[in-house]
Amino acid sequence: MTEMISKAACIGSGVIGAGWAARLLWNGIDVHVFDPNPEAQRQLDEVIENADRALAKLTLAPRPTKGKLTFTTNLAEAVRDAGFIQESVPERIDLKKSVLAEIETHAPNDALICSSSSGLLPSELQTDMKHPARFMIGHPFNPVYLLPLVEICGGGQTDPSDIERAQSFYNSIGMRPLIVRKEIDGFIADRLMEALWREALWLVKDDVATVEEIDEAVRLGAGLRWAQMGTFMTYRIAGGEGGMRHFMEQFGPSLKWPWTKLMDVPDLDEALLDKIADQSDAQAKGGDFRDMERLRDDCLVSTLQALKVHDVGAGAELARFEADLYSRAHPAESGSPDYSKPLRLYETVVQPDWVDYNNHMTESRYLQVFGDASDGFTRHIGIDSDYLEATGSYFTVETHIMHLAEVASLEPIYTTTQLLAMDDKRIHLFHRIHHGRNDEVLASGEQMLLHVGRRSRKACAADPAVLKILDEIMTAQASLAKPDHAGRSMGIKPKS
Amino acid sequence: MTEMISKAACIGSGVIGAGWAARLLWNGIDVHVFDPNPEAQRQLDEVIENADRALAKLTLAPRPTKGKLTFTTNLAEAVRDAGFIQESVPERIDLKKSVLAEIETHAPNDALICSSSSGLLPSELQTDMKHPARFMIGHPFNPVYLLPLVEICGGGQTDPSDIERAQSFYNSIGMRPLIVRKEIDGFIADRLMEALWREALWLVKDDVATVEEIDEAVRLGAGLRWAQMGTFMTYRIAGGEGGMRHFMEQFGPSLKWPWTKLMDVPDLDEALLDKIADQSDAQAKGGDFRDMERLRDDCLVSTLQALKVHDVGAGAELARFEADLYSRAHPAESGSPDYSKPLRLYETVVQPDWVDYNNHMTESRYLQVFGDASDGFTRHIGIDSDYLEATGSYFTVETHIMHLAEVASLEPIYTTTQLLAMDDKRIHLFHRIHHGRNDEVLASGEQMLLHVGRRSRKACAADPAVLKILDEIMTAQASLAKPDHAGRSMGIKPKS
Repeated sequence: MTEMISKAACIGSGVIGAGWAARLLWNGIDVHVFDPNPEAQRQLDEVIENADRALAKLTLAPRPTKGKLTFTTNLAEAVRDAGFIQESVPERIDLKKSVLAEIETHAPNDALICSSSSGLLPSELQTDMKHPARFMIGHPFNPVYLLPLVEICGGGQTDPSDIERAQSFYNSIGMRPLIVRKEIDGFIADRLMEALWREALWLVKDDVATVEEIDEAVRLGAGLRWAQMGTFMTYRIAGGEGGMRHFMEQFGPSLKWPWTKLMDVPDLDEALLDKIADQSDAQAKGGDFRDMERLRDDCLVSTLQALKVHDVGAGAELARFEADLYSRAHPAESGSPDYSKPLRLYETVVQPDWVDYNNHMTESRYLQVFGDASDGFTRHIGIDSDYLEATGSYFTVETHIMHLAEVASLEPIYTTTQLLAMDDKRIHLFHRIHHGRNDEVLASGEQMLLHVGRRSRKACAADPAVLKILDEIMTAQASLAKPDHAGRSMGIKPKS
Repeated sequence: MTEMISKAACIGSGVIGAGWAARLLWNGIDVHVFDPNPEAQRQLDEVIENADRALAKLTLAPRPTKGKLTFTTNLAEAVRDAGFIQESVPERIDLKKSVLAEIETHAPNDALICSSSSGLLPSELQTDMKHPARFMIGHPFNPVYLLPLVEICGGGQTDPSDIERAQSFYNSIGMRPLIVRKEIDGFIADRLMEALWREALWLVKDDVATVEEIDEAVRLGAGLRWAQMGTFMTYRIAGGEGGMRHFMEQFGPSLKWPWTKLMDVPDLDEALLDKIADQSDAQAKGGDFRDMERLRDDCLVSTLQALKVHDVGAGAELARFEADLYSRAHPAESGSPDYSKPLRLYETVVQPDWVDYNNHMTESRYLQVFGDASDGFTRHIGIDSDYLEATGSYFTVETHIMHLAEVASLEPIYTTTQLLAMDDKRIHLFHRIHHGRNDEVLASGEQMLLHVGRRSRKACAADPAVLKILDEIMTAQASLAKPDHAGRSMGIKPKS
């Protein structure tokens, strides 16, 4: 059973803190963000805007109503009623300890407190805490709103039941916690990343390769594999039929050669810093940082979706989270709506990535909106996740769209739906997309939906309970006029 | 100008050698494979079968006729008429040197000879060669038939013009060569991979994490980023507005903590080998090695295609290679297309983000594909960017879709288009979406397009040149049967 947390606080809103805020808000959680730097609010807004853009593309699953964001420079206010507090201030142990002390002074005694530290030991951070049992590391990866990994590492005083609470909470916001059982500097993931990074710094320092060449060496080879499997599984498969032991025996000796070199740590002196910064500038070719961030996010979204198809790694995690969102999206409706009018079951805003180069909603998004209206209708008549699992669902077999007016990015729209006809297997619907401010009809979409059995994959009668609601709507709407465009046949009359 | 190489030899056919053979064959090159182990032939066939499977999914671009494969246990026969020789025998310097000597005895003096060595220095390998100028390292990554990276590293006696020959040859078979300018053990990519691997071995040895946990730590976090950008670009973006220098200043101190640890090399003693092999067995859960290989390939194909959408990294490389394949396949079209049949104007692969929860192409994407088919049609009749700017364009005002069959992510699809009717303002089209492999009709889309003036924003007649091509198509297609679903009116007939 997941504890319901409806209010959270993010302490510190740099790249990581802002990423946390975006993920929490998207999951319907109200977030207070504290940062002493007033400039932080603008950066926070920019990160959240980028996150909204990426998350809108990530999944079609129903998302909770976005949480409310409050930015404050008053820490006490931020944590006062928070059930979950994520600390993401700079990596200085004295600063983190004093911030944790201030959090404890004002926060509820049982609020979970997790630190984003990528390397400090939780036992050290919790030494002076009054209620250290609910404190632990919750170390995420940038961008926090897209990458599912979070390393949980408790200290000597952390209560195992609080680790379970955090694990289940992170899980509920679409993350995959990895429990770090031994407290070590850098935990697990950062050790690996920094080993690679250390080697990369040497290669730059020794002029073996530029930062761009090193990045190419990663993303055109091993990096493609690392998105789906770690280094051990990669090598196991490379070992062929003999598996891991064979790989180690075969490649062990040659793997040793480079190991005998470059064990030192390069000094980050001015010369090396200059070299890296200059090469990095050359690589970026003057590209805007937010643009690069968006391209990164687009690639991450596509990679996550690609891996989801194969149910592998972070893609499997996305599939699990989507199933979760679908199952949460159908809370029992209260009371019957007024069936004597077309039903208003779906509303949205034209998303920025739905428009063409003229800034008008692109053709295919009209069908998406009609599909969402049909989903709203079938949910309304009782097609929930239990029904989908046990019985079947309605599939669209036919659609007729009339485009009547254009609509621009970020304009509000809503749909109305009239039931034209039904039988035990079919629903004949007539949707209209209206402008949200003036009710103008922008397009009509006539659809035929067919009830298909989950196991048979064939057309079959819907359950009686579903047919009963359909009958009720049909009866109430029988007196509505048949829309002009319903049953229309397309054609050009020959000139006479 | 790329040198035409039509015959190649692969010396050694383990995982790497067989992967080379598969890539070369797929690129229309005849390949002689030498391996003294007769068992190698079966393994070679299995690798090539897996490669064919993956490459068929990777791209719809026209591929050359597959090369001819010959397996032999006679090295002289393998290299006799080869223009390119790739050596992939085990990583023992004495063995490699004696194999190179035997290759030189029988191969043409100007054949390129590249070694797959992942760490041996080319200067050492070429010491005793008679024609060392055409020898270099060409170090690929597993699976060689999918990953584009190849590191080229010449030795002291290698001729720069031969490095250019190799670069251009690898490029022509879909690879992206990275020139390693300094000869060092492990070149660039393996240094990075082994730094990570060394750290991972420590984590296992010290019981901080299991091999499965380490693999999760990679693929759920940093690995997703590494598929599209290396470690430097990742950190640059994490540095936010301040860029790379800011990142180094901000995170430099904390990055140093783990650096001060674990610099030694763990002994690969029996105890550590046992531990790794046992944990790896547990992680693989008895999965068959060839099945795991196929799943890996499917994920790589999807990731490559996902990155291609954004023209990033290995996806950009795939796009370049596809453009190359297309340009090689269509040496300047001659004459008009055959208008007597429905026109095939658009093809694609169902993108990973086009599918719903059930992995079927989602409703709205059908309309997107029909829209792309209509765009293909209007481009064909002369609506180019000049026309759009000076005159106007066609807008879709009405669409009628029939869904006939489902199609899954990454399946190839194409459209055919029939012109049903036209007048000076309107085009009445009937599209079909077909499955790319079996031509099955997945959906039909009837569309009415209206010609709209650019400045007036009102319906108006198209230019005479456009109408002339439309007339020509209309006349040629007049004898085609009217499709069953054209002009269809939607409805449920009342039961009588």
